[in-house]
Amino acid sequence: MRAEIITIGDELLIGQVVDTNSAWIAEKLNEYGIELYQITSVHDSREHIIAALDEAFSRADIVLTTGGLGPTNDDITKHVLCEYFDTHLIEDQRVRAHIETLYKDRPDVLNKLTATQWLVPQGAEILENRVGSAPLMIFHHGQQLLASMPGVPYEMKIAMEEQILPYIGHSTASILHKTLQVNGIPESALAIMLEDYEASMPASLHLAYLPKDGIIRLRLSSYGEMTEAEMTQWFEELKRLVKDYLIADTDEPLEVILGKLLKQKGQTISTAESCTGGKLASLLSKHAGSSAFYYGSVISYDNSVKEHLLGVPAEMIKAHGVVSEEVVRIMAESVRKQLNTDFSIAISGICGPSGGSLEKPVGTVWMAWATPQGTTAECFHLGKLREQVSDRACTKALVKMIQLCQQ
Amino acid sequence: MRAEIITIGDELLIGQVVDTNSAWIAEKLNEYGIELYQITSVHDSREHIIAALDEAFSRADIVLTTGGLGPTNDDITKHVLCEYFDTHLIEDQRVRAHIETLYKDRPDVLNKLTATQWLVPQGAEILENRVGSAPLMIFHHGQQLLASMPGVPYEMKIAMEEQILPYIGHSTASILHKTLQVNGIPESALAIMLEDYEASMPASLHLAYLPKDGIIRLRLSSYGEMTEAEMTQWFEELKRLVKDYLIADTDEPLEVILGKLLKQKGQTISTAESCTGGKLASLLSKHAGSSAFYYGSVISYDNSVKEHLLGVPAEMIKAHGVVSEEVVRIMAESVRKQLNTDFSIAISGICGPSGGSLEKPVGTVWMAWATPQGTTAECFHLGKLREQVSDRACTKALVKMIQLCQQ
Repeated sequence: MRAEIITIGDELLIGQVVDTNSAWIAEKLNEYGIELYQITSVHDSREHIIAALDEAFSRADIVLTTGGLGPTNDDITKHVLCEYFDTHLIEDQRVRAHIETLYKDRPDVLNKLTATQWLVPQGAEILENRVGSAPLMIFHHGQQLLASMPGVPYEMKIAMEEQILPYIGHSTASILHKTLQVNGIPESALAIMLEDYEASMPASLHLAYLPKDGIIRLRLSSYGEMTEAEMTQWFEELKRLVKDYLIADTDEPLEVILGKLLKQKGQTISTAESCTGGKLASLLSKHAGSSAFYYGSVISYDNSVKEHLLGVPAEMIKAHGVVSEEVVRIMAESVRKQLNTDFSIAISGICGPSGGSLEKPVGTVWMAWATPQGTTAECFHLGKLREQVSDRACTKALVKMIQLCQQ
Repeated sequence: MRAEIITIGDELLIGQVVDTNSAWIAEKLNEYGIELYQITSVHDSREHIIAALDEAFSRADIVLTTGGLGPTNDDITKHVLCEYFDTHLIEDQRVRAHIETLYKDRPDVLNKLTATQWLVPQGAEILENRVGSAPLMIFHHGQQLLASMPGVPYEMKIAMEEQILPYIGHSTASILHKTLQVNGIPESALAIMLEDYEASMPASLHLAYLPKDGIIRLRLSSYGEMTEAEMTQWFEELKRLVKDYLIADTDEPLEVILGKLLKQKGQTISTAESCTGGKLASLLSKHAGSSAFYYGSVISYDNSVKEHLLGVPAEMIKAHGVVSEEVVRIMAESVRKQLNTDFSIAISGICGPSGGSLEKPVGTVWMAWATPQGTTAECFHLGKLREQVSDRACTKALVKMIQLCQQ
């Protein structure tokens, strides 16, 4: 079964909003054995939406649209779908009751524009949007199906998980992806190492290389032509070949992998961040259940905080600079002790654009990892762009910590 | 002038990677007066890429492709472009010299696969990729133009800014967008308030509503049919109409708006975060120049950190719970004092999925803002989904701080 996504909204095409919905939907569709063939982003324009619908229906069994379902004039998806499926809007009492209940304490929301939300296309199946006023609409188009959802990510996710995916149901096809993550080898060298393996792969198996921030994700994919057992065999062989560089044999984010290791051992971690300014803390606390292993952080963005909260001596900063082995070691050991955790990570670097020098150019980052066995520190040069430097720093910090936890 | 983007890569269509490139490119194109008509994401498949190229060239003057330019077997864009433009690969000595210099200290990278990167399509113009090995390729297609770039965001951004946009040049058309941000009014009520305004707008002017995390961005757009002065007049009128709810008259992120206010006054801020786990710190330190106003944070994810580093009495936590007015007030005042800043923000809440109770369900968040004039605190109910709660909490925290700074 093949699906396509049409994301509707001028904001996507002027760069005001990043489309995070499509990747999330893609992953869910694959779990249901449904291939996502194409994603198309179009303007809030009648002609443009109709052209995209025609093209999508020429290729796919299922068309999912997001966006354009708000109550304001710029939202036209519902009207265009009426035209496309040759129907008209009627009042839906069930939707009306739902919206009136949802906003019963919000007279400022229950106004004449919100009332247009309970007008729905006659003949469309309306699924319940538990958290919002936009109707979830299903249209049948011969053997094909269209589902229309709001573009607000939280609403879309609940709509997909609770209503639309169960409505569509699992495909009998089984799309299999298995991903592992390696560190410490360039993409091209890895590919040369895997030449024989790739040459021996059946045509139904695909290998993809996804480099990011120094990590390479290697993904094996099969679209319905291979059993789970066969796939596992190929994956195990791949793992064996890359074992010297292997960080993880799943596609989970590094902070999740670290969290699982820590939880298994009942151990805890804290962080002291300077240049990354909380990005590492934010990753470590992002996922449900992280309070079991993550205790907190001292973000010492200003040097005074390094001195007063982390006990880095002013003379040390004067002698070695804040981006130095001496300072990150103290930062790591101090936060580990103060927050009373098993492990800690400290990062101090120059993310740029300013702050670089000949000796320590932008991209220079010192890190330390404190463990019950002692503290190690390392210096990295992580590029020239602010965001790149801080992303890569977090990746390096997590990779090393995973390795230390695996020892 | 009209452009389209084709993003190439299976990883986009199985949800392994979020396409952040397109929004960034869209914004840049608009600055150059070039309308982005459509974004299409396709598989690493010869047939799919060719079909997408045909469709894009049937609509657009400029086609930009990202992705599929790596040295491994799964990257096929260069070969498909050769076929599409009826040419073949030849060795480019200039590209070879560049790659050999780029990796002169990396014999592990300078291997036979990397050597395929200096094979380029004959007849294509090759622009310099300063930071990577993938060639930036320009093809002419009658009066139309195709530019092919790597998909790695850092490489793509440098390629666009330094090479491709200057190559394309500014359009004579002037695309104008002006955005303001409001808070404290539902989208539908806002639209009702602006009914007369919208009715009086010329057809060449478009008004869009973009609600997110409690903020609504209102965007006026004109595609080449209005002067800057006329647009400004309409925008000023819009500002006047929404003045009671206005947070900002630009589309800048809230943390940037707050940063500018603080820098103007030479004031500083610190944060104490519990449930948001560093997300607010990460926002405040994200942008270049933030060290001028942002000092740091104590991320007290575990309660012990609230006690030991922020001086919240254990009895207070016992009596009121960590998600309480009493606790966030102490957190805010303590971090403001310890980090010696003018302002501070403290957040303690229940992001879920666990940790909720009947009295304090998931989504309950207490916040406090400490200022030289005193401390204020407020309780919010921000939804049921972990990510939603923490995103909205950061937004609420920033909005209130902006308002306090504007007083």
